[in-house]
Amino acid sequence: MKPIATLLLAVLCQSALANTAPQNIIMVVGDGMGPSFTTAYRMYADDPSTAEVEETVFDRLLVGMASTHPDMETGYITDSAASATALSTGVKTYNGAIGVDANKQPVQTVLELAKMQGRKTGIAVTSQINHATPASFGAHNESRQNYDKIADGYFDVKINGQFVLDVMLGGGWQYFIRDDRNLVEQFKAAGYEYVDDITQLDTVKAGTPLLGLFADKGMPWALDSANHMRLPALTKAAIRQLENDQGYFLLIEASQVDWAGHGNDIGSSMAEMHDLAVALEWLEQYLVKNPDTLLVVTADHSTGGLSIGANDNYSWSPKWLKNLKASPVEIATQLMTIKNRGALASDLMGFELTTEEVSSLNVIESDEPRPLHNAISKILDNRSNTGWTTTGHTGVDVPIFAKGVGSERFRGHMDNTRIAQTMFELLRNKK
Amino acid sequence: MKPIATLLLAVLCQSALANTAPQNIIMVVGDGMGPSFTTAYRMYADDPSTAEVEETVFDRLLVGMASTHPDMETGYITDSAASATALSTGVKTYNGAIGVDANKQPVQTVLELAKMQGRKTGIAVTSQINHATPASFGAHNESRQNYDKIADGYFDVKINGQFVLDVMLGGGWQYFIRDDRNLVEQFKAAGYEYVDDITQLDTVKAGTPLLGLFADKGMPWALDSANHMRLPALTKAAIRQLENDQGYFLLIEASQVDWAGHGNDIGSSMAEMHDLAVALEWLEQYLVKNPDTLLVVTADHSTGGLSIGANDNYSWSPKWLKNLKASPVEIATQLMTIKNRGALASDLMGFELTTEEVSSLNVIESDEPRPLHNAISKILDNRSNTGWTTTGHTGVDVPIFAKGVGSERFRGHMDNTRIAQTMFELLRNKK
Repeated sequence: MKPIATLLLAVLCQSALANTAPQNIIMVVGDGMGPSFTTAYRMYADDPSTAEVEETVFDRLLVGMASTHPDMETGYITDSAASATALSTGVKTYNGAIGVDANKQPVQTVLELAKMQGRKTGIAVTSQINHATPASFGAHNESRQNYDKIADGYFDVKINGQFVLDVMLGGGWQYFIRDDRNLVEQFKAAGYEYVDDITQLDTVKAGTPLLGLFADKGMPWALDSANHMRLPALTKAAIRQLENDQGYFLLIEASQVDWAGHGNDIGSSMAEMHDLAVALEWLEQYLVKNPDTLLVVTADHSTGGLSIGANDNYSWSPKWLKNLKASPVEIATQLMTIKNRGALASDLMGFELTTEEVSSLNVIESDEPRPLHNAISKILDNRSNTGWTTTGHTGVDVPIFAKGVGSERFRGHMDNTRIAQTMFELLRNKK
Repeated sequence: MKPIATLLLAVLCQSALANTAPQNIIMVVGDGMGPSFTTAYRMYADDPSTAEVEETVFDRLLVGMASTHPDMETGYITDSAASATALSTGVKTYNGAIGVDANKQPVQTVLELAKMQGRKTGIAVTSQINHATPASFGAHNESRQNYDKIADGYFDVKINGQFVLDVMLGGGWQYFIRDDRNLVEQFKAAGYEYVDDITQLDTVKAGTPLLGLFADKGMPWALDSANHMRLPALTKAAIRQLENDQGYFLLIEASQVDWAGHGNDIGSSMAEMHDLAVALEWLEQYLVKNPDTLLVVTADHSTGGLSIGANDNYSWSPKWLKNLKASPVEIATQLMTIKNRGALASDLMGFELTTEEVSSLNVIESDEPRPLHNAISKILDNRSNTGWTTTGHTGVDVPIFAKGVGSERFRGHMDNTRIAQTMFELLRNKK
């Protein structure tokens, strides 16, 4: 083909793209999910009976990487609030900021624009629904710590006379059912369906506004949930309520990948990644049937300084993480009440502990589960050869995954603010 | 635009791509350069007087990410030999393998195919030229440790009666000028120009075969080189010798990013990244003038478990790494001979050391520079808040960067073997 013809085609293709207008946008955040998490998950999910390492849903959807630093007054390392605000508004801000800029002024979010355009909107997360990431899409507050005010805002703030969020799924009883205010009753009086058990989601009439709260704060760990799964259920239920002729914007968060990272807990890290991966595999199929939808997946930052391999040893062995019968936090809680912990620990961890490993658990005397949780995580780190450098966040770029209408616009490297800016552009292309 | 027209355009674009045939391929390996290294480099190169964090050449060129695991018999963590062999042949192999498969059988490399097609070929690296990465493109051996045999092969093995490599630039006197054999004299007798000083590169007649060896083994650290640079000089010189009507294949390696990672030396890590970045910026411009060329850049693995931020502290401060007057290894060597090390250390490190930092250097008594090097690196880690988990490699996916003819084929996630397979396909499209 002649260069001039190729150029003409490129220009024509470009102009076709300019009119890209997804009916629905599904944004998924893997909180704390840096590149070590998605890579480790491939190894964790690998079938060891085959010679190849099987591709994951993350591999099929990868399109680029994003930088995550907050406003430079804060430095190079972001928290979840500043990064979620970058992803929801396209603006850099300080750590702790919820939908406000560096001067604490509210900035419109992509979810709010979608609502103004007549789309339905929702959040489905495994943290409390007023936690930093979902809050940064549906609220504005100078501090992520103002949990009650953020919860109040979900009811009090209106866009064109309507609630900001048609669907809210996750944890948070303690913020929504309070002595001073019962937001659940208020939402019910305003016409929302309310469920407090994840198994009730199927019973709700499709298309109705829905509040689903399933825990006091965050939901139980994936490893402590039925089939080690809950995000796929929340995802399917949210979409069932949101689908309509005007389209929708849905924010999904695998919130607890980050919590596992903060705990330097490789067992729960991989289980939370699996919960997310199964939700993404379902969304992949959903997009085949609903090709007018855009799916964008990224992380807000990485957590823990996770490394695949450590201590000068060239190996990583995820097999020790695959037979956990409960989360390391839950195992720690169960072990607290007994003195000789070897038998129960071996049963719950899914492999026979050595005498040395049992001793490392038996020596711990504490009224808190944390020291035992640390000891259990240490055993899993040693067996798998996993490394950590911090219980906080790190600054490494995070992967971007996308599929569907407009997904080609997320290719390559971009700042996380550019992800929001691109979603704004796509929303504004609405026919 | 109607869907059918868009589809037609997509098909036309696709068929245009099918005939993609780069005249030249420049493959660049940042050894050990995982995503933490390219991200940290953005912060290191950032102009702190501006509100934004400036984009780097890596950001402009990012197209995807690659998995790096070796043959599954070895496990999930690769060494440079297995990964370079994947990148050169498209085949998974065991750690230590140089251009041979898991059964120790030689496999054709992309460089060898380019040579068979009548292209010129070259390697330009900062390690010795017979080190694992360049050797995996230009030689076949069951072990990377067989340095002399690999060097011999560069002279003894012929493709269609010609030497495998027209240009060889890097270190390696001890392997090429030996008691049992003087390969430098043999190459000179066979018509190669030879230089042993990097400043002589400009004096060589363009287009001639060239052997340039500039050190006994690896070249001096970037921080100990003129202007903290040597890869840009090697890159320009190699291309000047290789350019011809039949095209060329050039393998460039920033070999010592990996060595800095093995040393957990964040000062040299960033300086080696800068040396590579300047070479890539020059190549970016070269591609503007030579649009028939493909540039592919990736890493073989990550090294050190580097984390940007550590120790539960949400900060990273590259400013402490910017005024080093010598490499931490060289500073350690200079400090070995004196007892009160504070003044010289402060001068060479570019900031005033605290009493505690000076003490951490003065207490060290050793005949080897390594303990002092570790102490200097520790000061830089503490000041910058850098974390490490290992002195070995880790399994995290590595970034892929590409520009020029065929670069769109490297988009998204792929295994590192697929990078080589794609280069083979592009080479076979030769007109």
